[in-house]
Amino acid sequence: MDFNTIEKRLNALVESGKKGELRGALSMLNEVDIAEYLATLDNERVIMVFRLLPKDISADVFSYMDTDQRTRLIDALGDQEAMRIIDDMFVDDAVDLLEELPAGVVRRLLKGADEEKRRLINQFLCYPENSAGSIMTIEYMEFHRGVTVGEAMAEIRRTGVDKETIYTLYVIDEYRKLIGTVQLRKLLLARDEQKIDEIMNEQVVSVTTVDDQEMVADTVRHYDLMSIPVVDKEGRLVGIITADDIMDVIEDENTEDFEKMAAMTPSEDEYLKNSVLTLVKNRFPWLLILMVSAMFTGLIITHFEKSLLDWGTLGVALTSCMPMLMDTGGNCGSQASTLAIRALALGEIELSDIGKVLWKEVRVAAIVGVALATINFFRLWLFTSYGPAVAAVVSVTMCVTILLAKSIGCTLPILAKSIKLDPALMASPIITTVVDAASLLILFSLARVVLG
Amino acid sequence: MDFNTIEKRLNALVESGKKGELRGALSMLNEVDIAEYLATLDNERVIMVFRLLPKDISADVFSYMDTDQRTRLIDALGDQEAMRIIDDMFVDDAVDLLEELPAGVVRRLLKGADEEKRRLINQFLCYPENSAGSIMTIEYMEFHRGVTVGEAMAEIRRTGVDKETIYTLYVIDEYRKLIGTVQLRKLLLARDEQKIDEIMNEQVVSVTTVDDQEMVADTVRHYDLMSIPVVDKEGRLVGIITADDIMDVIEDENTEDFEKMAAMTPSEDEYLKNSVLTLVKNRFPWLLILMVSAMFTGLIITHFEKSLLDWGTLGVALTSCMPMLMDTGGNCGSQASTLAIRALALGEIELSDIGKVLWKEVRVAAIVGVALATINFFRLWLFTSYGPAVAAVVSVTMCVTILLAKSIGCTLPILAKSIKLDPALMASPIITTVVDAASLLILFSLARVVLG
Repeated sequence: MDFNTIEKRLNALVESGKKGELRGALSMLNEVDIAEYLATLDNERVIMVFRLLPKDISADVFSYMDTDQRTRLIDALGDQEAMRIIDDMFVDDAVDLLEELPAGVVRRLLKGADEEKRRLINQFLCYPENSAGSIMTIEYMEFHRGVTVGEAMAEIRRTGVDKETIYTLYVIDEYRKLIGTVQLRKLLLARDEQKIDEIMNEQVVSVTTVDDQEMVADTVRHYDLMSIPVVDKEGRLVGIITADDIMDVIEDENTEDFEKMAAMTPSEDEYLKNSVLTLVKNRFPWLLILMVSAMFTGLIITHFEKSLLDWGTLGVALTSCMPMLMDTGGNCGSQASTLAIRALALGEIELSDIGKVLWKEVRVAAIVGVALATINFFRLWLFTSYGPAVAAVVSVTMCVTILLAKSIGCTLPILAKSIKLDPALMASPIITTVVDAASLLILFSLARVVLG
Repeated sequence: MDFNTIEKRLNALVESGKKGELRGALSMLNEVDIAEYLATLDNERVIMVFRLLPKDISADVFSYMDTDQRTRLIDALGDQEAMRIIDDMFVDDAVDLLEELPAGVVRRLLKGADEEKRRLINQFLCYPENSAGSIMTIEYMEFHRGVTVGEAMAEIRRTGVDKETIYTLYVIDEYRKLIGTVQLRKLLLARDEQKIDEIMNEQVVSVTTVDDQEMVADTVRHYDLMSIPVVDKEGRLVGIITADDIMDVIEDENTEDFEKMAAMTPSEDEYLKNSVLTLVKNRFPWLLILMVSAMFTGLIITHFEKSLLDWGTLGVALTSCMPMLMDTGGNCGSQASTLAIRALALGEIELSDIGKVLWKEVRVAAIVGVALATINFFRLWLFTSYGPAVAAVVSVTMCVTILLAKSIGCTLPILAKSIKLDPALMASPIITTVVDAASLLILFSLARVVLG
């Protein structure tokens, strides 16, 4: 059954006012789908349907709704009912929600929360944006050294239902320092009287609260983990991050790279949620910088004004090859820079590989350059009346431009990383601007030598 | 302790030949790190160290090594020992390995495998590349309807250690059709005599064996799953895919998009592993197509040859603005197309949103276009001797180019998707080529009207 059919049937039930049947229909759906359905309803109906949801799934549905929907619902439900939902949410989801709400609403809601929850939420709100601390959850199971397998199992049965994962258990020492992990599967296979630290795995991969989420995602991916513990700077366990949250981080970081590589300031929001002014603000500065750089490229042409006028028809011939040279240079450069940026992001190359990368790109450039230049030479020589001199000038320029574009394209991202800049900034737009100027300079200088 | 220190200490132990100490040191490391360390050793030492690893972790270490390393090791170990490792690997990892090995070696190794394993591996090798079937694993736990919680727990204790996950259990009916899932946590909290189908969740999200891995990743991300069941076309459960494998799929799909958006045929391998010829093969066809398109753009300039020669200095002035107009147009277009491609990939926009997207981009283009054109007008008017006519022609061209670039940039990817083409193909290189031609046509046509 696709979403449209689901929507139609639910709508019919909502209209009919048969609450019992509607409740039954909702119980057949996944929380994500219910959240999506709620987004299609008006204020009054959202509340009606939301209140029909069983208590244990309404918080889940709520955490899958988007900001606008949540704010709308919280306003409509009133503080007391809203706070009940927040209390039922995992702390990390609650914090995500509160970060999005207006400050006044947050203060009002937190007044109603119990002290422990309030303290935790405040602590979470203090972690730097995009740090491990800001995306971790505290609903994990920890055990002190010396606890037996039987005691651990009893504890899991007692409190495990409220934890985000019970499949990896964390073992801490008397100072709360993380000393090991135990997979639940291992616990199930162990004897009740065994000590938990006898069966734990001591090679724990962990991150600290201030580590950037990109680094956390890289670590999780590198070690194929389903969750990773977060420790403070003294090595004390304070939270965990699960693989489903890491997937969102990976997509966010990729979106950021895509945006930077297209000369935009990354935005936190979905495309359609950004206002026109935000989009302008993210794009205009880059366009301005790149436009001014391209103006300087234009000065190269002005510099050769007299030659161009003297050459007459041949000057126009050279001019007509500019788009081809500039585009090909830009494309070659962006191919090389994209691969370098991506290889750096995935950890496939290191700073020390710059020589290997450059040597590879130079060889690729030589083959591609000679091939494209040859095609060009014969096209200009055989199918135009400009003569072999112009054909040779354009072809040699093509070859040198491609070599330059590939070399600059692959090295700039690596150099950027070596001075702690984001490699993604050294993408197509910047490379194109640099290569444009170089190719025009080569074209006209060469023409001056050959054509006089 | 960082990897360099680890490497040095292990090297010292390898050199000293103290196998007992070396075994102890290795037992302190994560499997991923051991695989990385093995990559730094020569043939003879790799085998020596590998044979020191405990049997239960050597298969894991093996699955984290890269293709070259594995082939090298298999050659050196001999068929019998190699087959033992393959027998210890999860079927999906074994298949990944076998897909990479030369066909002769695969036949030789499979001869040694037991019949059941051989049948499974052959079946896996038949799933289409990048399909759910090709990346799923069969090491999951399934129970028939009617099994009690107590029986299920006993079965998990008996066979769970060999499963890739025991945290989600799958319930099937008498025809092996998937009818529900049970979280292990729920099983732990249930009474022993309860039937498993009383506590199972019937809203199962699943994929089929032939679904593309990109669609699988989207589904897992959309529903925040830690694993997803794979069914055949009759709805029978045949495998599962876990979140750690999905992360690799997400990164692969993103890399593919990055490569396509930079006018390259995606490659399966890491950057440094690709030969120069493969890189040339992936890039040359696109460069050739784009170069030929740019040649046609050049024809526009040739078409205006007489006017350009008549205009003299003013003609050169117009020419000198070409890089700026072309680059700005290209950048504006690639900003819009990147956001559209990304929003489509993340499911943030649908085909039906094309109107909303276009209207947003048109407004952004209007603001950005007027701003950049104004800056240009005053620069040309006040700081050059070309006069207000040339300034006006360039500025109006700038404005129209930006409007066109943003409109084409945001609609082409959506239109591509509507005819089942990959939106990522409609990125910067193609948009730039289209916009280049349009902007030159506008520039010179307008100049002909204004300058005569």
